[in-house]
Parts: sequence; structure tokens; C-alpha cells
Amino acid sequence: MSKPVVSTPLCSILHELRTAENSGSYFQPKLRSLKAANPKLKLLDVGSGWGHMGCSLAQALGPAGRVVGVDISPESISHAREVAGRCGLEDRVDFVQGDAYKLPFADNEFDVAHAHQVLAHLERPWDVIAEMVRVTKPGGFVAIREGDLESEIVYPAEPGLLKFHKLIATAMTARGKGGGGADTGRKLLPWALKAGAKRDQITVSYGTWWFDTPEHKDKWAKAMTGQVRDGMVGEIAKKTGLATEEDLEEMATAWEEWAAREDSSLAMMHGEILVEK
Amino acid sequence: MSKPVVSTPLCSILHELRTAENSGSYFQPKLRSLKAANPKLKLLDVGSGWGHMGCSLAQALGPAGRVVGVDISPESISHAREVAGRCGLEDRVDFVQGDAYKLPFADNEFDVAHAHQVLAHLERPWDVIAEMVRVTKPGGFVAIREGDLESEIVYPAEPGLLKFHKLIATAMTARGKGGGGADTGRKLLPWALKAGAKRDQITVSYGTWWFDTPEHKDKWAKAMTGQVRDGMVGEIAKKTGLATEEDLEEMATAWEEWAAREDSSLAMMHGEILVEK
Repeated sequence: MSKPVVSTPLCSILHELRTAENSGSYFQPKLRSLKAANPKLKLLDVGSGWGHMGCSLAQALGPAGRVVGVDISPESISHAREVAGRCGLEDRVDFVQGDAYKLPFADNEFDVAHAHQVLAHLERPWDVIAEMVRVTKPGGFVAIREGDLESEIVYPAEPGLLKFHKLIATAMTARGKGGGGADTGRKLLPWALKAGAKRDQITVSYGTWWFDTPEHKDKWAKAMTGQVRDGMVGEIAKKTGLATEEDLEEMATAWEEWAAREDSSLAMMHGEILVEK
Repeated sequence: MSKPVVSTPLCSILHELRTAENSGSYFQPKLRSLKAANPKLKLLDVGSGWGHMGCSLAQALGPAGRVVGVDISPESISHAREVAGRCGLEDRVDFVQGDAYKLPFADNEFDVAHAHQVLAHLERPWDVIAEMVRVTKPGGFVAIREGDLESEIVYPAEPGLLKFHKLIATAMTARGKGGGGADTGRKLLPWALKAGAKRDQITVSYGTWWFDTPEHKDKWAKAMTGQVRDGMVGEIAKKTGLATEEDLEEMATAWEEWAAREDSSLAMMHGEILVEK
């Protein structure tokens, strides 16, 4: 089967879907009360990636706030700076290269330390939580959110979509030492305890992402078809023998058909924790 | 194995866990804007059961609002009236016996028609949605929420809890003609379309229920252990051969151990729709 040309920047789509609004409602009340006491908040975004979430967080903080994003990848840092420039936020957001296990900041430096869909990629997520607590000021908080892929549901349950779901879950579970796995969201509480936080410092919640409008479904389907046709998922699947080229094409077509229906939707949960210091 | 005496009214626990706050946030903004225009709102609660949700809805409407609950079971009606009396809400909430397929009300009689975890029990849920739209005034809305059991996640994934989850999902799927099934939440949109609603009248959302605090976990575990030891789930499982007495006891013990841990939690999604008329 021939590969259609995918012109959309896939990674960008996935990253742009993450905003302080759709992925940060669990910490907004706490942030608002800190902001009321002191509008000059400093927020650290750990694993800041392409910077979209950092910029969105800067907007949530308001003009007096400052965001620092830290990421291990120099390419991500330069891309994130570009994004901040394009958004006119270069004075309020800075991105620095650094290791999440050894954050390049002093103790008690930030009002908020935040991470979104980052710990799933790490082997010792509890050590990163301890680092995030270390750089947070007393009176501040740590806010972490991770997906929980096993909770994902889709309508209609077409065979191509079920195959896709199984492929992703299998790949994540295979990788699953430490943070990896298809069940990361529900592990934030045990990880925070392992990091040394006391149970009464921790507030747990579960939030959802869902896609049901034509615009959102189209974006999601484009990202997923890109992942199987030209992206990392397709590559890993073929390398490990988890799926054939035909399987992958069936999955891609199923996503396109899903996006075109008016009765289709997809939803999944994220685990969320706030750790007060 | 001997059966311990369960003194808690199980059904009551499950029903009391449902409130306008934890199960109705998806329609609150719309309700608030209707209420601002007219505080004398009339709300119909379809499948009102033991009345806890109806009373909670009456509180959300405020003193000028009125709630009518309708249920097929005369026992539920008399229980619900008792609950309303105990809450001092007898002047603001009424419960009447009636059939959801043929609601005993005129067209355009209510500002809001509401149902929570009701359609999953019915064979033709789309016909009930059409009835709910019929009795709703132009300018009002229909609000429906149903669980989606397949999305349920639990930590830690102890064998007894996984067995329980599988048992419930199998029992629901076996029953699954019409509304039944372990995937009801995601079907609200297709059902509303089948009921004749246009796509642009319908707003979809997915909400979560989660339990992580000692108090909530204890309530949930009591309800679940009761279900397997002395309740409907245990009865069905033994009758159909889906589980032995030993399996059921393993599940009950697993729930008790789950509730006693500080790192455990459970979460599941609900599908939600608003249909504007």
C-alpha cells in the first residue's frame, strides 16, 4: 500500500492540544488563590517540550507572572523559544536545557512546579517528583498530570481502532519500567508517596480529555494517522512485529472514517495530583 | 465460607453518592443561565429512584424551583417521598409513578428534563430521549449522564478487583440489548441522534467519578462487598456460573484491602449530553 504524504506537523498537533484550560483545570483554583495573594508568581514547567503548555501557563499566570520551562532536549528548547516569540511571550517565558532528575534550580525557588505527560517517559518518576517538591517554595504546590491509556474509550468500536488501541497499550506496557506503561495516571499517588510526600499533602483527581466536534476529531485523527503511517508508532510496530503495514493502514483508515462520522467520540482519563508544600 | 452480616443499606450508599455536584457539573452553567432569566424553573428527573438526586437537584434550583421525579417503581416513589420529607424538601420536590417511555406530562412542560444512570437499564433508550425532548420547553434542555464501565481503572490492580471488574462488565454486556452494556456512556450521542435530535443541538462531554479519600473508598468498598456477598451481583454470578462463592469472597476481600490502603484509588468516566430544544 502506498504511503500518502502527510504534510501536518504531527508533533505540533499533539502538543497544541495541551493547554492550561483543557489540561490544567485541576490546579486552577489553587493557582487563583496564590495569585490573589501575590500576582508575581514563578512557575516551573518540567519537560516543557515544544513550549505550548508553558506559553499557555504564562497566559494563565497573567502579565506579572513568569514561567521557566526545562527540558532535556536542546532542539525542544530552541523550538519552544520560537513558539514563545511567536506568541509575544518572550519576556514572560524562558526555556532552559536541564535534567529533570537534577533540576538546575535552588531549593524553594518556584511557587508552582508543573509537569504534564512527562513522568510516563521516565524511569524513576518518584525521584523527579521529589526534585519538583525541592524547588517549590513552602506555601506553593506541585501539579502533575499523566494520561491513563487503559481508560480510553472510543465510539464506534471499529476493529481498526481497537487494533490501534491494543498496539499502543502493548507498546507502552512493554516499555513499562518506572513511569512507562498504559496505566500511568493512576500511579501518581503511589509515586508521590514514594517521593516522600505525606498523604495529607496530596490531593488526587482524575480529569478527562474528549474529542467529539468535527474540528477536534479531525485534529486527533490526523495526529493518529500520521503516527501509524509516518510516525514513531508505525516504526516501532513494524520493527517489533506488533503490526504489519496492512494492519497500520487499516488503523489509519479507521481513524479517518471515525473523524468523518457525526456520532463518533473518544475520551480518556488523566490522573492528576497536587502536592502542597 | 460464612457470610458476614452487612448492616449497611447498600442501595442507599450507591444512591447517596450521586449528587448534583459530583454528577451534574456538565449542566450547571446552562442551568445557571436559565435560572438567571427565570428562577421558577421546573425540572423533571426521569428514573428518580430513591430520590437523592432529585433532592440534590432541588437544592441546585433554589427555593423558587420545583422538581418532579418520575419512576416506574411504586416502592421507589414512596422511598423517595420519605427522603424528600427528611430533607425538608416536600414542598419543592414531588415524585410520581410513571413510564419513561410514555411520560405522564404534556408537551413543553419542563425547563429541564434530566436522567442519571437510567438509560442503561432500558431497552429503547432513544425513545426515552425523544420523550424527554417532548416534555421540555423550547429554550430548555435535556441533560443525560450514563456510566461507561469499560473506562474504569483501579490502583492497585489486585487480582480480586480485576475479577470483579470482569464479572460486572460480562454481566452488563450479556444483558446488553438497547441501553445495557459496559459501554453506555459513549452511546448517548448516537442515541440522541436516533431520537431525532440534530447534531448541533447536542453538546457532548465526559465526566469522571473518582474515589481516593478514606471516607469515599470505605463507602465504595462497602457497597461493592455488599453487592458480591449479599447483593444482586453475587446472586447473578452464582446463578449464571460466572463466579463461585470463593471467587466472590476473593473480590470482597480485595475491596476491603483496597479501601484500607493510602495509595489506592478508583476512577471511571461517564458520558454526558445536553440537548437544547
